[in-house]
Parts: sequence; structure tokens; C-alpha cells
Amino acid sequence: MLKKLKKKVCHSNLELVDYGLVIFTWGNVSAIDREKGLIVIKPSGISYEKMKPEDMVVVDLEGNLVEGDFKQSSDTATHIILYNKFPDIGSIVHTHSEWATIWAQSGQPVPVLGTTHADYFYGDIPCTRKLTKSEINSDYEKETGNVIAETFRDLDPNSIPGVLVNNHGPFSWGKTPAEAVENAVVMETVSKMAFYSLHIKRVPAIEQALLDKHFLRKHGDHAYYGQQ
Amino acid sequence: MLKKLKKKVCHSNLELVDYGLVIFTWGNVSAIDREKGLIVIKPSGISYEKMKPEDMVVVDLEGNLVEGDFKQSSDTATHIILYNKFPDIGSIVHTHSEWATIWAQSGQPVPVLGTTHADYFYGDIPCTRKLTKSEINSDYEKETGNVIAETFRDLDPNSIPGVLVNNHGPFSWGKTPAEAVENAVVMETVSKMAFYSLHIKRVPAIEQALLDKHFLRKHGDHAYYGQQ
Amino acid sequence: MLKKLKKKVCHSNLELVDYGLVIFTWGNVSAIDREKGLIVIKPSGISYEKMKPEDMVVVDLEGNLVEGDFKQSSDTATHIILYNKFPDIGSIVHTHSEWATIWAQSGQPVPVLGTTHADYFYGDIPCTRKLTKSEINSDYEKETGNVIAETFRDLDPNSIPGVLVNNHGPFSWGKTPAEAVENAVVMETVSKMAFYSLHIKRVPAIEQALLDKHFLRKHGDHAYYGQQ
Amino acid sequence: MLKKLKKKVCHSNLELVDYGLVIFTWGNVSAIDREKGLIVIKPSGISYEKMKPEDMVVVDLEGNLVEGDFKQSSDTATHIILYNKFPDIGSIVHTHSEWATIWAQSGQPVPVLGTTHADYFYGDIPCTRKLTKSEINSDYEKETGNVIAETFRDLDPNSIPGVLVNNHGPFSWGKTPAEAVENAVVMETVSKMAFYSLHIKRVPAIEQALLDKHFLRKHGDHAYYGQQ
Repeated sequence: MLKKLKKKVCHSNLELVDYGLVIFTWGNVSAIDREKGLIVIKPSGISYEKMKPEDMVVVDLEGNLVEGDFKQSSDTATHIILYNKFPDIGSIVHTHSEWATIWAQSGQPVPVLGTTHADYFYGDIPCTRKLTKSEINSDYEKETGNVIAETFRDLDPNSIPGVLVNNHGPFSWGKTPAEAVENAVVMETVSKMAFYSLHIKRVPAIEQALLDKHFLRKHGDHAYYGQQ
Repeated sequence: MLKKLKKKVCHSNLELVDYGLVIFTWGNVSAIDREKGLIVIKPSGISYEKMKPEDMVVVDLEGNLVEGDFKQSSDTATHIILYNKFPDIGSIVHTHSEWATIWAQSGQPVPVLGTTHADYFYGDIPCTRKLTKSEINSDYEKETGNVIAETFRDLDPNSIPGVLVNNHGPFSWGKTPAEAVENAVVMETVSKMAFYSLHIKRVPAIEQALLDKHFLRKHGDHAYYGQQ
Repeated sequence: MLKKLKKKVCHSNLELVDYGLVIFTWGNVSAIDREKGLIVIKPSGISYEKMKPEDMVVVDLEGNLVEGDFKQSSDTATHIILYNKFPDIGSIVHTHSEWATIWAQSGQPVPVLGTTHADYFYGDIPCTRKLTKSEINSDYEKETGNVIAETFRDLDPNSIPGVLVNNHGPFSWGKTPAEAVENAVVMETVSKMAFYSLHIKRVPAIEQALLDKHFLRKHGDHAYYGQQ
Repeated sequence: MLKKLKKKVCHSNLELVDYGLVIFTWGNVSAIDREKGLIVIKPSGISYEKMKPEDMVVVDLEGNLVEGDFKQSSDTATHIILYNKFPDIGSIVHTHSEWATIWAQSGQPVPVLGTTHADYFYGDIPCTRKLTKSEINSDYEKETGNVIAETFRDLDPNSIPGVLVNNHGPFSWGKTPAEAVENAVVMETVSKMAFYSLHIKRVPAIEQALLDKHFLRKHGDHAYYGQQ
């Protein structure tokens, strides 16, 4: 059942490790077959080294287990909400990648400071509000999906394919698992660069004599560095 | 003697290198056989490249050498105190991993800022007080164990499986060597993320025109980036 | 046509990945044959894994396609402006490498703070002014080249072989692709080091007793760390 | 001539690359045969990939070329001064490793903040004063050696086996090339950790409800994460 999609989802889960976005079991990729209304998702707490396409779990849009030897990812309820709310997306990625998580832990959106960001996200990468105590204590993973949907009430998920969940970490999406993973990598990269760009300050440069000495011992008529 | 445990302890010592937590001889893993009251620990100052299970040293809970071709780790006295004070733990890891050591050098606990931390540690990762001059100059490694135990007087070591020793570095523990190593990796990761989350500040984003240009040359009807 | 140059350009494009300067398709290298007035450049949006010398595209100094199975890099117009304005350069590299981009996003030059920088760049690495809205919306890539040329009105591109484009990222150049890539690596390294050098502050050191203990358990007559 | 020492010096030069301390030709290792009064040093500007033991250059303590197919490192004069001033050292390493260079560029010593540092350096790692304009313009590399010696007028080079040259980068030393390289790695590591330890600040932690939720969905009687 859904053999091809399982293979893609499994492959993309393993890519999260290759891109340095996850360690241990800290991430998951899912994809949806919109015609059949079925979602393929990583099993819960299975190590990446041993993961095979046939270990992927199939659930329907109400979260019922349709096929699988393992329990589905504990974040499945979040994925389902997003597939229901964002009709154009075909795949979702969740990680605790360092720099996106650093921003999520600060409760702030990642501001768009350059063209690397603008090539993929048409505006800041938003951060959800904090969940309330009652949301946390009722259906936590479902409410995580709801607070993401709430954050996109006035935003287009097709132009901003990712979000930070407050105090938690990033979710990204795309048409395909490959696209959702690429967006996760970009979120991580622009999150890191934004942090540092915001923190640059200026100080005086070294004096001219030392600059001259070093540049001119390597370049020009009187250079003496290296072999003649 | 304790062949299986030696193999696990040796393996976990080597994992410290694979996870990037130690260079040279800067770390050690031990484990205890509670029934026999015997501890297996890394030999002192032996390089990881050459370490074999049979090089592991066996000591009892008073620190007497029971078996081994080498001298035990110079931190053995610290491990013994912890096995005596924390009856549920089965393995201990000590490293000078960069980010946990950075916090230890600042003398501050790692605050719990997100769910990555909360998945493993039920509260801040505490930092011990500084050792007194007389503690440093008497039985230093034993006093290091004592100051950790003192730090946990009102904390549960099973819910907070790690600590920072002031001006020194991290110790972590678990039921098994694998669990103690996983907790050491998590301490390193959440220490890094906490540092940066605490330092984020906000500045204005780039102007709308540049954002439009970059996003729209890759996406939508008028995209011209890439092959048609 | 230009077989040897295509091989060099392709090789240098792949080096960008090896040096950690680019992911996905985020960079491009070109080189010019000054006698023939022809430029060899990376095709647009082709992944590095599959790139072969024969995929390189040849254009003339007006940007006309001379040879190639693919569309040229979307940044070709910028390269052409630079070849026209800087008559001594033979190759150009553009990346979104993290640290150079971090500075570009801050809109500030990288100050020369040490001899590593002075060995390659005879002064600060300048940052262009922001493009105006009308420049962004007319011929964007050409205007990117023009704003670089404007930045070098009173600077010598042979002594300062690189620039930051405001809110965007770095361009570097050299006599050959190898030299242009080396300059790109140096820009990334000195950008990182400059950031941190500017942010160092001082605090008190650890107390003498702990310093004595640790140094003297490893060194001198009473050392007891390691095997005898 | 000095075949064994050449082999060690060549090996240690290559280790600088393996430890991530140098790129391109940005570092050099030398060693001295005290009985013969001869120094073996890396040739200038030769790439590490192609370096062989027989490429090492032999000079005497006045800097005269004794044997070698290549020109000696352009930093040879600095090494010679140090061998003359510090009679107990057997090997010297110079790099532009990132974190040590970051401190050198700030003109400040690396403070001793923890036991990792204290295990190797008995106090702050000093930073030289800036060279004067006339020192830079006369015999630059020799004056670099002299300013290091001046910095150690009241310090013991055997207890503090390294220094930062202002606006430039680190030099370290030891009895053997292996020891000098290890000290270079330690300088890099403690330089990084000191930077961050000095910059930590505190903020409030996440609320109790989210902490409870995440810890308790993985641990205790009501855990539901992972396979049963």
C-alpha cells in the first residue's frame, strides 16, 4: 500500500540526518496522498539507522491507523491538522534543528534580512503564540497544529512554507517530501544567519603599517612569501 | 570478569568521540554492577584509538582496584561518590564537551527554554557551587562528587540526569551507558541552544521590493530562475 | 569550444561545495577568455552532484548565448558587468556563504582586524549601498553589477578581490577560478573571525587554587594523572 | 640528514589540517635538534596535500639554509628567536586557527575560566603588545619573535606553552611536535569556550505546564512516546 510514497517518506526522514537537522529520533517527515486521503508518516521512536520504507505507518485524516507494524509518530495529530487546514501542501517536516529551535525558544519570528531568505520565504518566518496551560494539558499535539493554523490566519502557507512553534521547534512543508526537507534546511540556515546579522557591531581596524606589511609580503614586486 | 559490562563501557567511551564530545583523553564512562558492587571504568590517560574492552578497570565501591592492567581514571573517586549517593543510576559519563563546559565555566545552570530540554531534563540543569580552597587541596575528586550530591539535596537525579561542575564541566548519568551517553549529548545540544536563545534581539527586516524581487524570480508566473 | 576553461570552471563550482560555501544550487563560478571575449559560466539551477564540464554555458560580453544545452546562471548579467568594469580579473565567484552573507545582511564592510585578512585584502571588504526600488524592479542582476562597480570607484579591485552586496551576499574574483575560489574561502573565514573579535569582553579568571590543582595533577613532580 | 625529525615535523604539519587548525598554507610546525643546533621546518607556501618528509627544510640557529630543495617558511625567523630564548622547548607550531586568532585580533589574553584550560596552561594565555611601526617595517618576522620573548619576561614558557601575537594569531610549543600540536588544539578549544563563557546571560525559563507535558509524555507511568 502506497509503496512509492513510503519510499520517499523514508528517504526524506534519513535526509534529515544527512543534513544535520536531527539526532537520535528527533524529527519526522510525512506525506499525503490527497486522492486516497491517506498519510504516510515515520513510526514513533524508531532509530534512523534501522528505518526501512516498510516501517512507515499509514493513517487517515482522522488519525486512524490504516496500516503499520509500529505506532505512528507522536506528532501525527499535528501533521493531520496541517493537512486539513493547508489544502495545497503534500508533505510536512518536523525537526528540532538547532538554529530554528533557538529562535522558537526565544518566541520570535525569524526576520527576513536577505535574499537567501527571500528566495524561499515571502516574509518573516512566524512564531506561534505560546500554548495555554489548558491547551497543553488537553490534546497537546492537536493543539500544536491548531496554534500553527491560527498563526497562518492572515498568512499564505504556500508563500511561507514553515513556522516556529513557540518554545518547541520548526515545522516546514512543501508539495513533496524533497521540497519540505529543502525548506527545513533553508529555515535552519537563514535562522543562523539572521541571528548573527542582528548582532554585528563595528570597531576600528588594524593600523596601516601592519596591513601594508602583510599584503605586500605576498603581493607585488617585493613579495617574498612562497617559492620564487 | 564482567566481560559484557566492559564491552559496553568501552563502546560508550568510543561513542563520546563519535558524538564530538571529547578530544584526546578528555572524558570517561563508567558503569556499575549493583549486585556485585563493582564498577567498570575507563583507564586513565589512554588514547581512544587504542582502547579495547579488556583495558577497562574494575574497582569496588571503596575505590580499591579489583582488576586491571592500567590505573583507573583519575576521576574515579567522583564516580564512586555518585554511585553511592544516587542508588538508581547504572552508568556515569564525564566530558569537557564544549557547550556544557561553557555554561560550567560561567557558573550558571542551563535554563529550560524549550521542549528539547524538557524531553530529557525535568527542570534547569544545575551548576554546583565552587569548591572551597580546602576542598580543592584535600581530596579533590571526592569533593567534586560531594558537591554534586550537595547540589541534588532537593533535586531528583532520576528526573535531572546531569549536572555542571562549576569551572569544570558536565557529568551525566542513566540506567545504562547508552542512556548516560545520550543524556551527555542532549546536555551539549540544549546548552548550545539555550546560549543563543537567550541572546536573540530584533531589528527591522529588508524592504518589500527586494523581498518581492527574490521570491518572485523563483516562484509564480513570472519566475525566470532555473531551467524552464 | 573552450574545453579547458569549462573543465576549470566546472571543477571550481564543485569546490564551492567541498569548502562548505554552498548548498543546493546557491553559488556560481565563471571565467573569461579575454582574447575571445567569451565567458564560461555555470548553468542555472542545476544540482552540483550531476554537473559536468560540458554543461557549462558560453556567453559573450553582451550576454548573448554562444553555446550551451542549458540556460546560463540567473546571475550572469552581474558577472558580465564586472568583467567589463574590472579589466584584470579572469574569474568570478558568487555564493551565499554563511559568514560573508551575515555581514552583507548587516550592510557593513568586514573590517581588517588581523594579518589573515591583510594577507589577501588590502583594506576592509566593502559592502555596497542598498539597491533602490527602481534598480530592483528594472534590470536587477545588471544593477547588482553596477552597484559593485560604483563601490569600487575609489578602490582597486586587484588589491581588494571581493565585495559584499547589501542584503544579499559575497562576490569575489581573481586571475583564475582557483584564485577566485580561494578568495571566497578567505572572505568567509575572515568574516567569521571579525565578527567574534569585535565581540570579546573580559571577566575575572578562576581562582588560583583550582588552577594549581588542575595544572599540577598533570604536570611536575606530584602529577598523578595518566599511567606512571 | 635528520630523517626521523623531518618525518615527525612533516606528520605534525599534516595533523594541523586534520585537527581543522589550518586551511591552504596557513600554518607551520618546526622542531629542533638541540645537540646539532639545527632546526627542521616546513617549506614556504607548499600545499599540505603534496608535502613529503624530504621537503622539510633544515636551517641553523642563525637562519642559514643547511639543507632543502625549497625556501624555508617565511616565519622561520620567529621560530629561531623562540628556540634561542626558550631553551627547554623542542618544537613550535604557528597557525591562524579561528578562535585563537579571534582573541589575537582583539588584543586580549585568553582568561583561564576552567579546568580544561588549567590542565594545560598555568594562567591566562598572554597576548603580545602590538608591534611598533618601525618593528613592522624593519625585520618583521624577527621582531615578532622578540615581542613574544618580551611577553614572557616574567612568565614561564614551560608552564604557559603558547601565546597570541597581537592582530595576528597563535604560536604554541612543547618538547615534541606532538606536544606542540596538542597545545595548539587546546588553545583553539579553550579560546572558543572562554569567548562564550564570558557572554552568558540569564532569562526566565519556560512555564511548568509545558515542562511537565514534555517530560511526562516520555517518562513515568503515563508516557506515550515511542513503541510500547
